[in-house]
Amino acid sequence: MSFGGIVMTEISVSKVEQAGVLPTDDQLGFGKIFTDHMFIMDYEEGKGWHSPRIVPYGEFSFLPATIVFHYGQAIFEGMKAFRTSNDQIAVFRANHYLNRFNRSASHLCIPQINVEEVKAGLFQLLELDKAWVPSKLGTSLYIRPFIVSTDGYIGVKVSSTYKLFIILSPVGAYYSNGFNPVSIKVEDKYVRATKGGLGQAKTPANYAMSLNAQAEAHEQGFDQVLWLDAVHRKYVEEVGTMNIFFKINDEIITPELSGSILGGITRQTVLELAQNWGLKTTERQISIEEVYEAHAKGELQEVFGTGTAAVISPVGELSWKGQKININNNQTGEFAKKLFDFVTGVQYGSVPDEFSWMDKVTV
Amino acid sequence: MSFGGIVMTEISVSKVEQAGVLPTDDQLGFGKIFTDHMFIMDYEEGKGWHSPRIVPYGEFSFLPATIVFHYGQAIFEGMKAFRTSNDQIAVFRANHYLNRFNRSASHLCIPQINVEEVKAGLFQLLELDKAWVPSKLGTSLYIRPFIVSTDGYIGVKVSSTYKLFIILSPVGAYYSNGFNPVSIKVEDKYVRATKGGLGQAKTPANYAMSLNAQAEAHEQGFDQVLWLDAVHRKYVEEVGTMNIFFKINDEIITPELSGSILGGITRQTVLELAQNWGLKTTERQISIEEVYEAHAKGELQEVFGTGTAAVISPVGELSWKGQKININNNQTGEFAKKLFDFVTGVQYGSVPDEFSWMDKVTV
Repeated sequence: MSFGGIVMTEISVSKVEQAGVLPTDDQLGFGKIFTDHMFIMDYEEGKGWHSPRIVPYGEFSFLPATIVFHYGQAIFEGMKAFRTSNDQIAVFRANHYLNRFNRSASHLCIPQINVEEVKAGLFQLLELDKAWVPSKLGTSLYIRPFIVSTDGYIGVKVSSTYKLFIILSPVGAYYSNGFNPVSIKVEDKYVRATKGGLGQAKTPANYAMSLNAQAEAHEQGFDQVLWLDAVHRKYVEEVGTMNIFFKINDEIITPELSGSILGGITRQTVLELAQNWGLKTTERQISIEEVYEAHAKGELQEVFGTGTAAVISPVGELSWKGQKININNNQTGEFAKKLFDFVTGVQYGSVPDEFSWMDKVTV
Repeated sequence: MSFGGIVMTEISVSKVEQAGVLPTDDQLGFGKIFTDHMFIMDYEEGKGWHSPRIVPYGEFSFLPATIVFHYGQAIFEGMKAFRTSNDQIAVFRANHYLNRFNRSASHLCIPQINVEEVKAGLFQLLELDKAWVPSKLGTSLYIRPFIVSTDGYIGVKVSSTYKLFIILSPVGAYYSNGFNPVSIKVEDKYVRATKGGLGQAKTPANYAMSLNAQAEAHEQGFDQVLWLDAVHRKYVEEVGTMNIFFKINDEIITPELSGSILGGITRQTVLELAQNWGLKTTERQISIEEVYEAHAKGELQEVFGTGTAAVISPVGELSWKGQKININNNQTGEFAKKLFDFVTGVQYGSVPDEFSWMDKVTV
C-alpha cells in the first residue's frame, strides 16, 4: 500500500461479526458510544511501530504492573470527522492534529509516529465505520488517537513498548446547553501547568491536575475555570480544556504559547481566520487585571474559548476572587458567532473550504 | 472478619493452581517479578468500595476508553515488607503509607479507602505469598497499592468507578551500585510540580513530568535530578523520586512540605530519629545558593536523599548550571550511614523496634 509517496505496511483488518446498532441523534452524548472498530499499532524498541491493524472495538488485556497505570507515560489527541451536507465524510485539519500528537510524544519521551501511516490507518478505519458518522448539525464523529506505555514492570523509567489506539465516538454537542455563553471562575488556588512542565503536551497529567479545580468550580455554579500562570498567578493561560481569546478595542488577543499552554488547532484556525479577515490579532501575555480594566473602561467586547469539542464557546461571565463581570451582556458576541458559523460551515460543507481544512475520507 | 474493632467484609480468595517459581536473590531487580497473587477491590458510586478479593496475579481487561488512559485519575503507594533475622514477615509503617494513600486520593477526587480494611487485605495477601519475601540483607518485598479510574467513556470528569490493586514484587537493592554516593544534576530547565498542583500527591502525573529531565540527566552522566521550585527556580524541592536532606553546621535541614513536595514516610522517619537523637532539625525553605554557599564556607557536611526504595541515598556530587561541588569528598557521610544502619536494622530485625515501626504479618 502506498500513501503520499511513502510505502506503507499493509493494515490487517478483522471485522465484527455483527455490526452494532447505530445510535439515534438524541442518544449521542460525548465519548459514551464507540463505533464497531478501532485501529491499533504496537511499538517495541529496536522494531519500531509495527503491526497496524483494524479490529473490533473491545476490551484489552493489561498486566496490573503496566507502566501507564503508575507513571502516566501517555498522550492523546482529539479530532473530528463530519458528514457534510452532500453526504461526504471529511476530517478537520487531520495533519495538524497528528503533528501535534508527535510534539506531545517528544515531551513524554514516546517514540515518534509516521504521521502518514497513522493517517492512512485512521482513514481506512473511518471508511469502514462511516455509517457511524452522524449527520445532524452539531453532531460529529470524535476521533481519539492515544498512546499508552505498556512495559509490565514498575521502575520509574521510559517504557520500551507502547500501544497506539484510535477509537471513534459519534458525539452530540459538547455543551449540553448549546452555543450559549458560559460562566467561568478565574482559578486562584489551583494551577494547571508551569513552564518546564507538560502544559504544552496533550497528556493525562494536565487533566488529572484539573479535576479538583473543576469540581470546586462546578459546586460553586460555574461551567469552567480560567487558569492563571503558575509563577505570577496573574497571566491568563487557558480556560478549562480550551484556549481563550479576548476581543478588546477590536483587537483579537490570545495568550502566547509560552510553554505551559496547549497549542490548540482551533486556536490556530481562529488566528488564521481573523488575520485573513483583516483583524488585528496579537499573541502575548495578558493579565487578568488587564481584562478587568478593559471591562471597566468598556473596552472588553468579547471573550470566548476555542477547542475541538466546542469549536467556539462564548464566555458570558468571569468571576475572579469573588468579583464578577458580565461580558457583552452575557450574550454571544458577533465575532464569536461569525467564527462559529464559518468554521462549522466549512466542517459541514455549507461554506466553501477555501483554506483546505477538510480531508475527504469518501469521495 | 474483624480487624481493629471494625467489622470487615469477608475477603474471597482464589488461589493459583500451581505456585510460581521463587526467584533467586541474584534474579531480583526492582519491580520486575511479581508474586502469585494480588488483592483487588472495586468502587462504584452509591455502592462504595466492595468485593475485596485475592486472586492470581495476571492480566486484566480494560476498554480502550477507560478514563485512566486518557486523564490520569490514579494514585499509588510504595511500601515494603521484610523478612527479619528471626524469619518473621513485617511491614514498615503500614498505616503511614495507607494514610498517605488517602491524602493522595483527596487530591485526585478519588473516594477514600477504609485504611484498616485495605490493611487487612494486604496482610492476608502477604500471609498467602510470604514465601516470596526474600531474606538477604538489602532485599525486600515491595508492595504497590494503586487505584485507577475505570469509567469507560472519555469526557474529562471525575470517574464514578475505580479499581484498587495491591501487587507485590520481591526486590533487590534499588541502586545497582549499592549504598554509594550518587551524582545529582540540579535541574534548571524542567519543573516537577508547582504549588496548587499535584506535587504532594503520589500520582502518575508527577512521574510523567520527570521523564525528560531524568533522561537528559542520565545522558549527561548524572544519576538523578534535584528539582527546584516552579516560581523562583531556586528553592530546593526533592531529588528524583526522593526527599532531600542537608547537614549544615550539624543542623539537619530538609525543605518544608509547602504543597509541591511529597511528604515521604522515610523523610518523616529521619526527622523523628534525628530529633530523638538530640540533633537540631529544621524544615524550611532552602535555596540552592545557600547550599553552594555553605559548601564554599566548608559548612556543608552531608547531603542525602530519603525514600522507600533506597531508604537513604548519599549524594556525593551536585552540579548546578555546570558548576560542580563535591560533598564530603564523595564519601558516604557518618550521619547518613548511621540513619541507614538504624532504619534497615529495625527493618531486618537486628535493631530493636523501639518506635513500633514494624507491623508483623506472621508471628
